[in-house]
Amino acid sequence: MTLRYFTAGESHGPGLTAILEGMPSHVPLNLSQINQQLARRQQGYGRGDRMKIESDSVRITSGVRHGKTLGSPIALWIENKDHAAWADEMSPVAVRGFQSKRCIFYPRPGHADLNGGLKYDHTDLRNVLERASARETAVRVAVGALCLQFISTFNVSVTAHVIQIGGVGISKGRPDFSVINQKQQKSPVRCIDDAASKKMMAVIDKAKKAGDSVGGIFEVIFSGIPTGLGSHVQADRKLDAIMARTVMSIQAVKGVEIGMGFLAAELLGSKVHDGIYYDRKNKKFRRRTNNAGGFEGGMTTGENIVIRGVMKPISTLLKPLESVDVHTKKTCRASVERSDICAVPAAAVVAENILCIDVASAILEKFGGDSLKEVLKNYGAYCKYLSTCYPARHK
Amino acid sequence: MTLRYFTAGESHGPGLTAILEGMPSHVPLNLSQINQQLARRQQGYGRGDRMKIESDSVRITSGVRHGKTLGSPIALWIENKDHAAWADEMSPVAVRGFQSKRCIFYPRPGHADLNGGLKYDHTDLRNVLERASARETAVRVAVGALCLQFISTFNVSVTAHVIQIGGVGISKGRPDFSVINQKQQKSPVRCIDDAASKKMMAVIDKAKKAGDSVGGIFEVIFSGIPTGLGSHVQADRKLDAIMARTVMSIQAVKGVEIGMGFLAAELLGSKVHDGIYYDRKNKKFRRRTNNAGGFEGGMTTGENIVIRGVMKPISTLLKPLESVDVHTKKTCRASVERSDICAVPAAAVVAENILCIDVASAILEKFGGDSLKEVLKNYGAYCKYLSTCYPARHK
Amino acid sequence: MTLRYFTAGESHGPGLTAILEGMPSHVPLNLSQINQQLARRQQGYGRGDRMKIESDSVRITSGVRHGKTLGSPIALWIENKDHAAWADEMSPVAVRGFQSKRCIFYPRPGHADLNGGLKYDHTDLRNVLERASARETAVRVAVGALCLQFISTFNVSVTAHVIQIGGVGISKGRPDFSVINQKQQKSPVRCIDDAASKKMMAVIDKAKKAGDSVGGIFEVIFSGIPTGLGSHVQADRKLDAIMARTVMSIQAVKGVEIGMGFLAAELLGSKVHDGIYYDRKNKKFRRRTNNAGGFEGGMTTGENIVIRGVMKPISTLLKPLESVDVHTKKTCRASVERSDICAVPAAAVVAENILCIDVASAILEKFGGDSLKEVLKNYGAYCKYLSTCYPARHK
Amino acid sequence: MTLRYFTAGESHGPGLTAILEGMPSHVPLNLSQINQQLARRQQGYGRGDRMKIESDSVRITSGVRHGKTLGSPIALWIENKDHAAWADEMSPVAVRGFQSKRCIFYPRPGHADLNGGLKYDHTDLRNVLERASARETAVRVAVGALCLQFISTFNVSVTAHVIQIGGVGISKGRPDFSVINQKQQKSPVRCIDDAASKKMMAVIDKAKKAGDSVGGIFEVIFSGIPTGLGSHVQADRKLDAIMARTVMSIQAVKGVEIGMGFLAAELLGSKVHDGIYYDRKNKKFRRRTNNAGGFEGGMTTGENIVIRGVMKPISTLLKPLESVDVHTKKTCRASVERSDICAVPAAAVVAENILCIDVASAILEKFGGDSLKEVLKNYGAYCKYLSTCYPARHK
Repeated sequence: MTLRYFTAGESHGPGLTAILEGMPSHVPLNLSQINQQLARRQQGYGRGDRMKIESDSVRITSGVRHGKTLGSPIALWIENKDHAAWADEMSPVAVRGFQSKRCIFYPRPGHADLNGGLKYDHTDLRNVLERASARETAVRVAVGALCLQFISTFNVSVTAHVIQIGGVGISKGRPDFSVINQKQQKSPVRCIDDAASKKMMAVIDKAKKAGDSVGGIFEVIFSGIPTGLGSHVQADRKLDAIMARTVMSIQAVKGVEIGMGFLAAELLGSKVHDGIYYDRKNKKFRRRTNNAGGFEGGMTTGENIVIRGVMKPISTLLKPLESVDVHTKKTCRASVERSDICAVPAAAVVAENILCIDVASAILEKFGGDSLKEVLKNYGAYCKYLSTCYPARHK
Repeated sequence: MTLRYFTAGESHGPGLTAILEGMPSHVPLNLSQINQQLARRQQGYGRGDRMKIESDSVRITSGVRHGKTLGSPIALWIENKDHAAWADEMSPVAVRGFQSKRCIFYPRPGHADLNGGLKYDHTDLRNVLERASARETAVRVAVGALCLQFISTFNVSVTAHVIQIGGVGISKGRPDFSVINQKQQKSPVRCIDDAASKKMMAVIDKAKKAGDSVGGIFEVIFSGIPTGLGSHVQADRKLDAIMARTVMSIQAVKGVEIGMGFLAAELLGSKVHDGIYYDRKNKKFRRRTNNAGGFEGGMTTGENIVIRGVMKPISTLLKPLESVDVHTKKTCRASVERSDICAVPAAAVVAENILCIDVASAILEKFGGDSLKEVLKNYGAYCKYLSTCYPARHK
Repeated sequence: MTLRYFTAGESHGPGLTAILEGMPSHVPLNLSQINQQLARRQQGYGRGDRMKIESDSVRITSGVRHGKTLGSPIALWIENKDHAAWADEMSPVAVRGFQSKRCIFYPRPGHADLNGGLKYDHTDLRNVLERASARETAVRVAVGALCLQFISTFNVSVTAHVIQIGGVGISKGRPDFSVINQKQQKSPVRCIDDAASKKMMAVIDKAKKAGDSVGGIFEVIFSGIPTGLGSHVQADRKLDAIMARTVMSIQAVKGVEIGMGFLAAELLGSKVHDGIYYDRKNKKFRRRTNNAGGFEGGMTTGENIVIRGVMKPISTLLKPLESVDVHTKKTCRASVERSDICAVPAAAVVAENILCIDVASAILEKFGGDSLKEVLKNYGAYCKYLSTCYPARHK
Repeated sequence: MTLRYFTAGESHGPGLTAILEGMPSHVPLNLSQINQQLARRQQGYGRGDRMKIESDSVRITSGVRHGKTLGSPIALWIENKDHAAWADEMSPVAVRGFQSKRCIFYPRPGHADLNGGLKYDHTDLRNVLERASARETAVRVAVGALCLQFISTFNVSVTAHVIQIGGVGISKGRPDFSVINQKQQKSPVRCIDDAASKKMMAVIDKAKKAGDSVGGIFEVIFSGIPTGLGSHVQADRKLDAIMARTVMSIQAVKGVEIGMGFLAAELLGSKVHDGIYYDRKNKKFRRRTNNAGGFEGGMTTGENIVIRGVMKPISTLLKPLESVDVHTKKTCRASVERSDICAVPAAAVVAENILCIDVASAILEKFGGDSLKEVLKNYGAYCKYLSTCYPARHK
């Protein structure tokens, strides 16, 4: 069973909803771990004031009983804490005599405001931006955090860190997964290089002063991934392509790369491809390097998945960009909505969590099963097969 | 109706099949234009000898009558010209007494051989590589070329060119769409910069001599795109993410970026976002720049779509990489299968064509309709609406 | 855009959730009309006591602002009014020291209890029945009622009535759509034949006394349907098949038929097929009869859609059936859960509403569009085309 | 992995194509067994002359090597033997100076001609009927026959028989699966009741003489089905609803029922639901009866699946029905296209085969796995679990 989900909810509406379909039964769920991911998403140097208001917490209203999944669809709810102040503005039902004071008629470059307004025939562009806002990722992260708990039972781990902000990058080379995972927690910008971390904060401070914003690059790493998730047989079953889509679906992301990524355009094949050897101790085919970032032919190699995304600078500037009054068509300054200076650390957390949905889905597709025990049993049988193949020349 | 399609076929099997579902009726199809795209895909400096054998041509066996689509599914067939030499090896039915002489037991790093073999329990890795091969893209290109003819009726045009090979890049800045389109046709590596073009060929020559291979970066540009394709409302409806997935699904692609892409991590927001103005003559909202590459909020802005992909160097090296005999687990050199030195120009053609499927699908989703006339009528009404909105302050 | 939706929620959990994806913007929504459908679903002679407790009302938490859809996903929430009494039993989070008193170990024949328990490895079969319960249809009806408001703007109407209960059927022949629609409202069993209505109630009373239950047949009729929804070109696009699936997906439904249905097995073709004539006044191709129930080749003919479903008798009997203690495997009487005697009138309301989702989806697929105005414009253009075709011999 | 497939092809075009996606590797395929199903489909008392021309045989062009599946998509091709006579009429490419002599301007009631023509803007209705024709089922049967070979390895068997034609039904009660399977092969109308069989043929003869046609009811039975395929958790995962859709998607089918079906509207619950007992010898929960037809809560119970469909009489009558010239709108007689008198035995074969696709897909969804061995291993582990649960009171 492939996992399926939808999210719903506007940024200042009553709250965010998600339904996740296809999770097997008997998966133990820890609410506080989900809330911890929501908190991580809200942190990060460069976030605006709204983050302090929110402190998201998720409520599960179905599909789980006494802390374990039932196999039925899981509904998630995250209240928008500041909805009270917007109750009339964002009321689902008509409010007698209401006159909006927060209409947006000056579309913000970089946002969905203008093309969304044209597409859906909205004059008040708030009707677009409320949904297009990255606020939506809160509940997607919750879905992902839930999937993370599932894949953890297969010894899959994930971490994410920031490798560039506003032109400041970290030094080349990467420490081990566990070191990255530890270090990213300690930096206000989730950067494992202390010197770069400080420079990144300085860049953010400078942008803030200038009424400007900055973007950056984050990297997500999965370890413990089984060999053979995804498939080469049809374009839409390639897991690297599915995960690239997921990263690109994060608000403001403009690029994604796996393993060596764009650097592969500069090197010879002999410097790019990862030599194969056999690890007799662990009875496993392994690679000398991992330039492929864990994927060959759309399938996992069993090495770590390494995937990066680039987030453009936040589109709402305190020093607003050139825009147009949609009615008069006269040039004006774009509307200003409360916003962040830099959200790359948050994007890293978003990517880390929502990519878990893809991995969980790929695991379920490969191993089948309706209860956690059954999925684990099938997974275990596959691991055993892997450690004994290829036994001899047969066809 | 969203377009749907599947491809099927092994590299040395009888041929490649595709079925395309959802194309409206009355679309005029020109077979020779499809074959022309197939020919473009086979060209490019750095391709191996197989390309000379092939000279693909497509046969349409359903869904089209007297050169016009019927609205029913379109089946495409491309014969594998060299199948004759492989008839027994790749026979779908059992061949009495047959002993394969072309088994692959030494997986090639960078290819799907090893993880595909493990996943599908194939000892002879040929059972994987025959499908994982980029040969599959021939019929995907045919599907795309067919979609291109559909979107052309909406004045959408597309082109592609190569901007980097083996570390040699073109100079910054881009001429107009039409210039790019013309120039890419004249370069053996589809590079619009003559000097770079020559250097790229030199890099390829050098790699060839060394038994090595090179990768590179290609760029696809769509012009004439209507505003408002795709949607911001759900992660899986973002057209930029869908197109990123498509690029990443091309064999050997390891990264994809849109508009400014990864460069956006280095600049301030005020240098990235595209100011909005109103073009009174054409009654259209326009952008001063197009750093967004035609997308905001997962929707088209009406500016050109600009999307790039990076292709890693070809994985089959004449000077083969370290591998393992899958039975003995002893270190060996990877198998060698006839191959190219560089396929970046081909990848550009592949991307250019298959991205047309996404655009065609997005057009059909937005405008509905079952005959070309109906789709065009709905599209025309939308264009008219766009040129008159927003008429006055209403809600 | 095809409509997509999921529901979530257990029968005695906190509540039911649904997310509906793909509804265009600017559709006016009337909450009280949705609640009215929920009330209709709860009525009907033969329902148990729970119906009196509930009195469902829906809350919309996203996708709608000031009574109009935004184009973004719509989240619906229906509280389970009796959850308070089940708060610990059905708590999503662990409850310290909790010992369930409502475990189900004796599976009820006719329900999902046993095979659901085996599939999902649930010993307490409550973990299955809470989701398998027809309680789920409350929120599906809400989704459908919302779609009904959308299709109403295209002059599509729908009604449903009960034509058989426990072997008591109505007399042959049908009055007009509007008469059926009026009469079904007045009968406690939604039966338009007064005499039959009384007999049906008597059958229900008798079953109740005997601790037994009864089923029956309902019929749903759509009028105002445009010609050409659905398609013949691929099996999964046939709208009659899609609607048959929808009816069969209603809890306890065991059969579905369209138009003449199973009776067609008894008659000659000349008595079955509906002669075609041209209605010059309305410029429309029409049928002498409607034995096809509004479908030919998986597409709507423009005549009324007529679809029937059979609901088996309620599976929970007060006089319980033979079962087995799942632990001891000893024969026992099935568990008894509060239930109805007959729910056929409710099933009629469920079918009527949820079939509106299919019709709305087919309309959106045919006409495209992102705002109600755009969909209506495209629809209007198609109607105009229909009234003028085929103008002359062309190809 | 869920199975996915498309078919393509017009009735008198070059041939029919299908692509089946998701079949695991190492499934042994026997071409002659597929062709045998194609032959069964072409037989049956009441078929027209075309059946004698055809004698379909399938060619597999990908996804299979030396008689075993590779795990990659399987492409199927069935040539239309009489295409030669239609080469110009149905040519995919333009034919210089061609004037069609086989245009259809008088739509046939009961067929897709009229609404398909209006939907797709076809004046020559041949452009609709060529695809709407039941000829398409030939390749769907081939896909199904292939799936049958897969599910056979799980000890699943299937058969189908005709229980009513033109009002003549078989006597009540059913012999065992194996008896039905044997007997249906010997009757020219696939009827297991010899007396009824003769009467059915007489009814067909009579209809033929009168230039008329007849329909009927067929029944498909699966034995050996594992408990717990499908799911109750979401409407679109109910396997009974999926299979109902499949039956309804067969050309000319107007109703479908499972188990007791419409008869359940006449009986008390205590006479309908199937008592549960434990079969200690086989360590299996069993049912006293199988009125549910193998489904409860959208999931298989492990008892035989019993599903019936009703086929309306063939729509093309030698004594044609009232129609309209689409240009002049004047009343006329419908066009006559070569056709059958009765195709119910063929429909039984079609249903039998294509329902195997649903069962195969449900098996793959439940058990996962990419090679036959892996799927079988997971299936075996589940069977073992079933035979030992529920071991003791645990939660």
